[in-house]
Amino acid sequence: MKLSTLVELAKNYKNICLLGHIHPDGDCVGATLGLAMLLEKYNITSTVLLNDLPNQYDFLPIARYVRDHMDEPADLIISLDASDPERLGSFGQLLTNAKKVINIDHHISNTMFGDYNYVDAEASSTSEMVFQMVEDFSVMDVDIAKALYTGILFDTGGFKHSNTKPSTHLAAAKLISYGFDFSELIHNLFDMKPLKAFKAQGLAFERALTYMNERILVSYLNMEDYKNLDIEKSDTESIVHYMNNVDGVEVAVFFYAIDADTYKISLRSKGIVDVCKVAINFGGGGHQKASGASIKAPLEEAILAVTNVISLQL
Amino acid sequence: MKLSTLVELAKNYKNICLLGHIHPDGDCVGATLGLAMLLEKYNITSTVLLNDLPNQYDFLPIARYVRDHMDEPADLIISLDASDPERLGSFGQLLTNAKKVINIDHHISNTMFGDYNYVDAEASSTSEMVFQMVEDFSVMDVDIAKALYTGILFDTGGFKHSNTKPSTHLAAAKLISYGFDFSELIHNLFDMKPLKAFKAQGLAFERALTYMNERILVSYLNMEDYKNLDIEKSDTESIVHYMNNVDGVEVAVFFYAIDADTYKISLRSKGIVDVCKVAINFGGGGHQKASGASIKAPLEEAILAVTNVISLQL
Repeated sequence: MKLSTLVELAKNYKNICLLGHIHPDGDCVGATLGLAMLLEKYNITSTVLLNDLPNQYDFLPIARYVRDHMDEPADLIISLDASDPERLGSFGQLLTNAKKVINIDHHISNTMFGDYNYVDAEASSTSEMVFQMVEDFSVMDVDIAKALYTGILFDTGGFKHSNTKPSTHLAAAKLISYGFDFSELIHNLFDMKPLKAFKAQGLAFERALTYMNERILVSYLNMEDYKNLDIEKSDTESIVHYMNNVDGVEVAVFFYAIDADTYKISLRSKGIVDVCKVAINFGGGGHQKASGASIKAPLEEAILAVTNVISLQL
Repeated sequence: MKLSTLVELAKNYKNICLLGHIHPDGDCVGATLGLAMLLEKYNITSTVLLNDLPNQYDFLPIARYVRDHMDEPADLIISLDASDPERLGSFGQLLTNAKKVINIDHHISNTMFGDYNYVDAEASSTSEMVFQMVEDFSVMDVDIAKALYTGILFDTGGFKHSNTKPSTHLAAAKLISYGFDFSELIHNLFDMKPLKAFKAQGLAFERALTYMNERILVSYLNMEDYKNLDIEKSDTESIVHYMNNVDGVEVAVFFYAIDADTYKISLRSKGIVDVCKVAINFGGGGHQKASGASIKAPLEEAILAVTNVISLQL
């Protein structure tokens, strides 16, 4: 779908609403904001509806475009980066009364729930798809470029993941040519860490335990650690990712206490072990290389149970 | 300089030698190896001379091209990624007897020591310069692409640093189109860490101390830690980088013991403080944002001295 096609279609509607998925991430924010700004260049006003937006995206013009509710029902809905209506959370109900639904997404699992579906499972990100919609670059500006770059950056892990294609780098080349401090953007989005999160990371790294000839790496933070370090769950989110970077480790498991005798576990695999199967074993789920579950048991017992299940696959 | 020009020139020489700088890094390895492979496509055999090559580049065809000495004197020397002959280490003496010296580099401080100097301070990396030399892409192959991608990746910190240009992403787009597992390459080059280095990182993070309202972050590993963790200096090299990512920190200082009462310090600044000035104060040096020195003093005393000097700039 080209931007000109979307513009022609959108001209027929009054209340235009751009939706992203629940727990909005960089791609969802970049794609919705980028498209809203692009449409504005053609005098099409739209509202971006997103809930619980983390403040890490405040370098984008969030306040100008993003709302958390609509007073009037939406005529035209453009859903971005959501594979099915459930992923839209409470905003999904807006679909019922909408006159038209356009579904733009790059997830292979997309259910084609729109009246128009522009779905490209080969695209690195929905933001790259929005970039590809642009034919006339005279409408592109630095804010739009920043939003779309953010989305691409986020979903490719900084051009690292295998979803990065030549077209992704071509898009990045064009986008950074608009001139913004992408170094700082990357630092803010990926690298910057509060001191307490840095300390939590240190504690988790230092006390990490190995099983099965150092092929399983386990660490944890208990309720006391959360109190001592004054941290929340969000401060510990990248720990398991770093654990999985250790040479020789096949599976990393991070246990974080949610109450005195319950731990959530976050699992990462380099590929040999399907951690989704491990998570399902404990009532959780996810993907082959990244999954989660929760276990009601004392820590030692929980670790033993999880490492035992993993070792069946090693 | 175009590759065809270099090929025409190189045809007149017998012993062709490609040199990189001492302590070869990703760009130096990528550029020398990439160019050696490109020349070979035009039936020009050359030797890459590099010393102390870390084994992290073993995914490139090192053994086929790289030697640590030459039996015969070199007629034609192509120096890559070295700003001056001193940076060539002991290989610098080969320049004396060479009939021609070609100097290809992207450092602004290059002394133009070649008979031909192809120096572009705007280029992200020497590897990107080698890429730009190619006019006829029928000679490019997956190994050459991998080598040049490695160099670009290394010197841009994975397309993060401000030396990344639109041309850099365009080069990356072309290079990854040759088809190799860049995800794994990036993991091996940047993310993978031995377990003991991971533990050392944890210990250093956990015991980090703050000064000047958390604007200076200090940590250390002493002789005992090195023994307990069975680590070497190379296992601790990225610690100061991560310390400098902490929100609000202006300067990160990592102290690592080199003997019972001497510490090397590694300094990183986000920009406000010129850590080169700080390092000079202790007989060291470096750049504005990254410097080093060594201090003969007990740890507490050394920390006090360094943080005092930094605080003069805060």
